[in-house]
Amino acid sequence: MLSDIEIANAAELRPITQVAQEELGIDAVHLVPYGHHKAKVDLGYLQSLEDRPLGKLVLMTAMSPTPAGEGKTTTTVGLADALRGLGLRSMACLREPSMGPVFGMKGGAAGGGWAQVVPMTDINLHFTGDFAAIAAANNLLAALVDNHLQHGNALGIDVRSVDWKRVLDLNDRALRDVVVGLGGLVNGYPRQDGFDIVVASELMAIFCLTESWADLKRRIGDIVVGDTREKRPVTARELEADGAMAVLLRDALAPNLVQTLEHTPAFVHGGPFANIAHGCSSVIATRAALRLADYVVTEAGFGADLGAEKFVDIKCRKSGLRPDAAVVVATVRALKFHGGVDVPDLGRDDIGAVERGMENLERHLRNVREVYGIPCVVALNRFPTDTDAEVARVVELVDGLGVRTHPATHFVDGGFGATELAKGVLDLLESSGPSTFSFTYPDGLPLKEKAETLAHRLYGASSVTWDGKAKRRLDRLEADGYGGLPVCVAKTQYSFSTDATLRGAPTGHDLHVREVRLSAGAGFVVLVCGDVMTMPGLPATPAASRIDLLDDGTIVGLS
Amino acid sequence: MLSDIEIANAAELRPITQVAQEELGIDAVHLVPYGHHKAKVDLGYLQSLEDRPLGKLVLMTAMSPTPAGEGKTTTTVGLADALRGLGLRSMACLREPSMGPVFGMKGGAAGGGWAQVVPMTDINLHFTGDFAAIAAANNLLAALVDNHLQHGNALGIDVRSVDWKRVLDLNDRALRDVVVGLGGLVNGYPRQDGFDIVVASELMAIFCLTESWADLKRRIGDIVVGDTREKRPVTARELEADGAMAVLLRDALAPNLVQTLEHTPAFVHGGPFANIAHGCSSVIATRAALRLADYVVTEAGFGADLGAEKFVDIKCRKSGLRPDAAVVVATVRALKFHGGVDVPDLGRDDIGAVERGMENLERHLRNVREVYGIPCVVALNRFPTDTDAEVARVVELVDGLGVRTHPATHFVDGGFGATELAKGVLDLLESSGPSTFSFTYPDGLPLKEKAETLAHRLYGASSVTWDGKAKRRLDRLEADGYGGLPVCVAKTQYSFSTDATLRGAPTGHDLHVREVRLSAGAGFVVLVCGDVMTMPGLPATPAASRIDLLDDGTIVGLS
Repeated sequence: MLSDIEIANAAELRPITQVAQEELGIDAVHLVPYGHHKAKVDLGYLQSLEDRPLGKLVLMTAMSPTPAGEGKTTTTVGLADALRGLGLRSMACLREPSMGPVFGMKGGAAGGGWAQVVPMTDINLHFTGDFAAIAAANNLLAALVDNHLQHGNALGIDVRSVDWKRVLDLNDRALRDVVVGLGGLVNGYPRQDGFDIVVASELMAIFCLTESWADLKRRIGDIVVGDTREKRPVTARELEADGAMAVLLRDALAPNLVQTLEHTPAFVHGGPFANIAHGCSSVIATRAALRLADYVVTEAGFGADLGAEKFVDIKCRKSGLRPDAAVVVATVRALKFHGGVDVPDLGRDDIGAVERGMENLERHLRNVREVYGIPCVVALNRFPTDTDAEVARVVELVDGLGVRTHPATHFVDGGFGATELAKGVLDLLESSGPSTFSFTYPDGLPLKEKAETLAHRLYGASSVTWDGKAKRRLDRLEADGYGGLPVCVAKTQYSFSTDATLRGAPTGHDLHVREVRLSAGAGFVVLVCGDVMTMPGLPATPAASRIDLLDDGTIVGLS
Repeated sequence: MLSDIEIANAAELRPITQVAQEELGIDAVHLVPYGHHKAKVDLGYLQSLEDRPLGKLVLMTAMSPTPAGEGKTTTTVGLADALRGLGLRSMACLREPSMGPVFGMKGGAAGGGWAQVVPMTDINLHFTGDFAAIAAANNLLAALVDNHLQHGNALGIDVRSVDWKRVLDLNDRALRDVVVGLGGLVNGYPRQDGFDIVVASELMAIFCLTESWADLKRRIGDIVVGDTREKRPVTARELEADGAMAVLLRDALAPNLVQTLEHTPAFVHGGPFANIAHGCSSVIATRAALRLADYVVTEAGFGADLGAEKFVDIKCRKSGLRPDAAVVVATVRALKFHGGVDVPDLGRDDIGAVERGMENLERHLRNVREVYGIPCVVALNRFPTDTDAEVARVVELVDGLGVRTHPATHFVDGGFGATELAKGVLDLLESSGPSTFSFTYPDGLPLKEKAETLAHRLYGASSVTWDGKAKRRLDRLEADGYGGLPVCVAKTQYSFSTDATLRGAPTGHDLHVREVRLSAGAGFVVLVCGDVMTMPGLPATPAASRIDLLDDGTIVGLS
């Protein structure tokens, strides 16, 4: 089979103006083109659609993944293509890739095989400049903080408390832990600091939760950069940074329209981490898609314990968006993984392992249906090594839970390979009664009890414990009036627990909260459980060394 | 008079496709649009124009400036507009603004008054993403260097010798002097480091001197990031960084087309510092403009001792471009400044100071005509405080040197205010004989003698001295085979000497070279004379605090 970039480079793309007009009825005058195959859709135009009825929103989530991922993005693309193939007006809403993994190890994130969004190289590199804009705004705030300290510190910021980091869209381990402000009087006050990758910035989360320019500026103003010596939070608004930062994000806030290999329109907009942030593409894009299309498929990060939970408890809670159905992506490989098989052996026939691993999928399905109250089907994303017997066994076992499974081959067959999945989703939407959608916990619950609710209802944990410092921070946040915010758990995606080696559906474990962070602008409290890497490193042989530009401008080696 | 942004926001822009078609005969299919008023022109299309005759190239330079600048950008725009007003096919080629000054103190750099390129806010902010691309490629190389050290250091790089800095497009003094790689084994080797502003990156200079994708990759490969322990230079090519870095700059390399307020087409592309780099917009843009228009006006940085010299000895030497004429911008204010008047008093009538300050302009004119061999006129950029007597005296004195002076009022009158200047330039072009263009020194001269030639021929210095370390570095560069490169002097723009307080036309001074740096990819050796700031700081009240985004998306406060 061809590589992703070979498929993408050979694809015949339609002009984005044509996709917009023919598929969505958007006139070219409402587009802000970035080349001939990418465009932002004007925010004013999108606002004019507010009276249109909403399409159906389908959430793409997954069982706990293997390190390679189970194909949520390809399944999102495949399903949107399949729905369009059935003559329906569909759209995909995806996250923008970060350049860190592109030049590091994992590669791009525009789908794969015959289920991609294109132009693939553009999307995986600078795209429309959104991430650069977010980085610029983030770093302007950091510079303004240090500049405020330098020029007299009128707000009385405690230099030790500053925790607004600078960001780059790059894997660069040398920047994780740095000292800035060296070199004497003119260079400011030395302090220990660090850089994150741009997708880990609170500003990325703000960007993806915001509703309008005014809302963007308000949220930015609410960002807390540190405390005064009297322990009063200091905001970006007090530093007079909110206006300039909003200006830097003005154009980026309009959603990016591209197409799949099969010309299905897709918004690719925003991409926050799924651990210290909520891991979903932008509210603006989802909302716009629901006015423009009848069926909108959007993905959340990691497994359903993390991504779907945050989609529900953060994105839906804050925006009023409601999913009509969910698709839980499973693979025979991941089932074997949770059945105790290690990565090198996942391609071997092992129906017993598949059966043992079902408990992981089963708990995710229970959470999606019974906790979030979203009707769902399973998409079994097929790999070449899957045997028919293994696939049949999965279908049978999931059937026993009252859930339909649809094997899908979009990776090799494009949208056609997800046709049965699409029909299954349509059946589900048709047969579902009134919405049973529900948050995992109410706003009013204290932060501590929110964490306990997630631990008990979703993760199978029997206790939640706190580092002393984390607990003190939590108490202070309650006292400072942030207790009504939702929580955002940062933990490993490989397990329901905080221990990546506890596969399957562990119970009786302890959720230990190591650190508590406030994302006041985004509007959530991050509970860091275990190690969270917010600035990845490059491997010994980075992908960058294989990526090349030919004399005729062709890009090769991107994956 | 309205502010720059008020004028720009009220301007009626033509679609860039229309400007391209009507003014330059470029079909829309050869444009890569960025919104409706900015476009990159396809490099393949530009290559297809190679057989067309060249237009006339007019270099805009200036006398030694006051801190406020003498209006080279506005005069470039005004002259291009005036030429078009005379029915001629003209273009301007300008540098892209950095966001550092926009949020700092100086403000934007898209011209001013009624001589601006538009859309002004776009050009002053992210524009088409070129600077973000250069920053990303620059920082990828930095990450690859530290990553190479981390994973065994097969090339044997001496960690103390690494001098490839990271960059941001921001004024951020806290990043000038930092320590990276703290935090233990997984974060790499701690070392002292620093950040520059993106316009100070060697990669920006490379970008502006490059001819094609292949040339770009070759130049990037030549970048020296440090030495081995045996003092052998280590290149980006050896780190396998060149391909990925070129990929990041692929799209950026196509020149950006915009328009002036009067719809004259302009390329705004690249913008290296004029001290540690050569301070000119891209060769690709200049070359393309000369195929597309009959008259191309382009500016060089600072005064004619720095910007024009580097235009001649670096940009022209490397590209084969040749200016047909030069315009030296002078102001009554700058003449008074060099006649000994301080900034607050420059608005006062003082014809004696104007006369005393003439020696500065006189030396610049001599250099341009006799050293560079470029026929020239003076553009006297008029300010409201200039008296008619002062202006008449300048015209008279310059006339005595055999050079015509053309007072110009484009700032308040647009292109119409530069009509006499345009006619003067046309007369000059018509009356000039065969080209007498000449470099200041030949390639083959040793680096040390190149510096001495500049010092004696241009600056009026009587000696060149070297810090011990600088001299040793120079000798090593000669020994390593870099002796054939041109030199790039980084010194104050306010004086012919290295002492900013020595105004007028000082003689007998010493040019002291404090530091020698190699820009092997750009292809020059930097001679640092005096303090050079490559990462500016923010002032006590940064412009950022006045810049704001209104609820309807209007940007205010940008200057």
